[in-house]
Amino acid sequence: MKTILYKSDPKRGKLWQDIFADIAPDYRFIQWTDLDLSQGDPAIFAEVDYLVAWMPPENLAQRFPRLNVLFSIGAGVDQFDLSQLPAELPVVRMVEPGLTQGMVEYVTFAALALHRDMPLYLKQQREHQWKVHPVASAAKRRIGVMGLGELGEATLNTLQSFGFECHGWSRSGKAIAGVTGWAGADQLPEFLAHSDILVCLLPLTDETRGMLNAALFAQLPNGAALIQTGRGPHLVAADLLAALESGQLRAAVLDVTDPEPLPVDSALWEHPAVWLTPHIASQTQPNTAVNALLANLQRFETQQPMIGEIDKTKGY
Amino acid sequence: MKTILYKSDPKRGKLWQDIFADIAPDYRFIQWTDLDLSQGDPAIFAEVDYLVAWMPPENLAQRFPRLNVLFSIGAGVDQFDLSQLPAELPVVRMVEPGLTQGMVEYVTFAALALHRDMPLYLKQQREHQWKVHPVASAAKRRIGVMGLGELGEATLNTLQSFGFECHGWSRSGKAIAGVTGWAGADQLPEFLAHSDILVCLLPLTDETRGMLNAALFAQLPNGAALIQTGRGPHLVAADLLAALESGQLRAAVLDVTDPEPLPVDSALWEHPAVWLTPHIASQTQPNTAVNALLANLQRFETQQPMIGEIDKTKGY
Repeated sequence: MKTILYKSDPKRGKLWQDIFADIAPDYRFIQWTDLDLSQGDPAIFAEVDYLVAWMPPENLAQRFPRLNVLFSIGAGVDQFDLSQLPAELPVVRMVEPGLTQGMVEYVTFAALALHRDMPLYLKQQREHQWKVHPVASAAKRRIGVMGLGELGEATLNTLQSFGFECHGWSRSGKAIAGVTGWAGADQLPEFLAHSDILVCLLPLTDETRGMLNAALFAQLPNGAALIQTGRGPHLVAADLLAALESGQLRAAVLDVTDPEPLPVDSALWEHPAVWLTPHIASQTQPNTAVNALLANLQRFETQQPMIGEIDKTKGY
Repeated sequence: MKTILYKSDPKRGKLWQDIFADIAPDYRFIQWTDLDLSQGDPAIFAEVDYLVAWMPPENLAQRFPRLNVLFSIGAGVDQFDLSQLPAELPVVRMVEPGLTQGMVEYVTFAALALHRDMPLYLKQQREHQWKVHPVASAAKRRIGVMGLGELGEATLNTLQSFGFECHGWSRSGKAIAGVTGWAGADQLPEFLAHSDILVCLLPLTDETRGMLNAALFAQLPNGAALIQTGRGPHLVAADLLAALESGQLRAAVLDVTDPEPLPVDSALWEHPAVWLTPHIASQTQPNTAVNALLANLQRFETQQPMIGEIDKTKGY
């Protein structure tokens, strides 16, 4: 019997535990918060084959001698310090349809809201003002998605179904039917010039940290809008506020901030052209995530490549 | 040469005129606002074959002896007093893809916003509050659309693509693949009981006026939400406010009000669970509307049924 140790939110972990008991009773599923660590590491650590975690414990190699794979419970692994992990340990990010669906819902909501000027209309509502503004057709609205992993690709496919002109950018490029693809630093300016609505779905790495800054905003079409669904540290908040002030950007929908929770005195809370949500765009859904994990375990145990295994040299 | 008289917003009319000159120069296209009516009806009235109007002029039969068809420039004909129109005059509502696309965008925006609790999150933003709420999967969210014309059907098809459980109700019923259909007054209670998010896309008739009232809200699941994209007089605003107060409804997105513009002292403006837009969900788009009109003219001139011709006994 293989042993899985889960270390994340215990309420959601209970759901994982119940689902495992139901559909995969041949795995032993243990929650970190159910263990007694007051006397040091419990003996069961020596039997852990797989770790499923938001923040993994320290000294993995010493404390979990049998550990075979580290699974992130989130879509990214930026919360891991990869330099501290055993070099040979496979690290897998979460790829599961519930997580993807949540992101597609959120970005579609935000893109339609920005396309149809909803931040302006809700501002008018607060002022009791009934005033109609012209609307562009979706065919004339260009949406650019940065980051073309599972989430970026699924999001672009849904946005296409509304008739938006879709552009995608990533470090190495990716062909998606119906989407104009751009790759690497060389093509970034041209991609940005085609993004009336810019969506950030990038992984957080040393290269992408702080990338949503004044220099980038200046390359967008005047009056562009931002959907920030990456990680908080992608964005330089002061530069966003300045771009909104100058009119270079007309609105922004932010689901992530730096830090989180956003401090109560941040100027982002009050800005009339900013919509802010508390990192809810996409959450790993226990039902679908357990299935995705089981499929990956089966792949690992039969020496096949796992879905979402990261390249530690790239960091995602 | 056939003559078309256009009577609606002159700025948009200029666009229609340019498009007609460009793609259908064999029609004479005249704008109401370009005529001099100071000396009574101009002679050209006698030559008008087709009238395209938001509000038609009075005494149509006497003033336009050659008039063949009255086209509404909007998706509905509720602004017409059908009892005052010549009995034999065909009346056609606007069915054109630009109008449909606008409505699909708006209702999808509103449905995703309500599905993902955005009115609550934007209220939290105003209070600088960072608090996550559980999210239901789309498969467990039931959306009910009242009114299954072109707009209702297109909207349901898009909502289905997000995985929502979709229900549709109309007076006579309509089969739409993947949608649970309900018909008539008998099945209305059952339909309402299945609508976590209720969308009104009904035509405005004597039967539907005031239909969104306390008795109807009471039949929805507790905590349901409303998307009002029909006509203002469908809704009894005081009943909506009471239902929001009691918690029977949790939020509403309103694009139409009664009257319009909404008076500045209406309680709807300030309610934190109400999002209000100034009748912008869907507008007839000149480019696509001219094509739809030309296709209908060709049908009429070759004795084929027109798209969108109304049944005056039903009123839509």
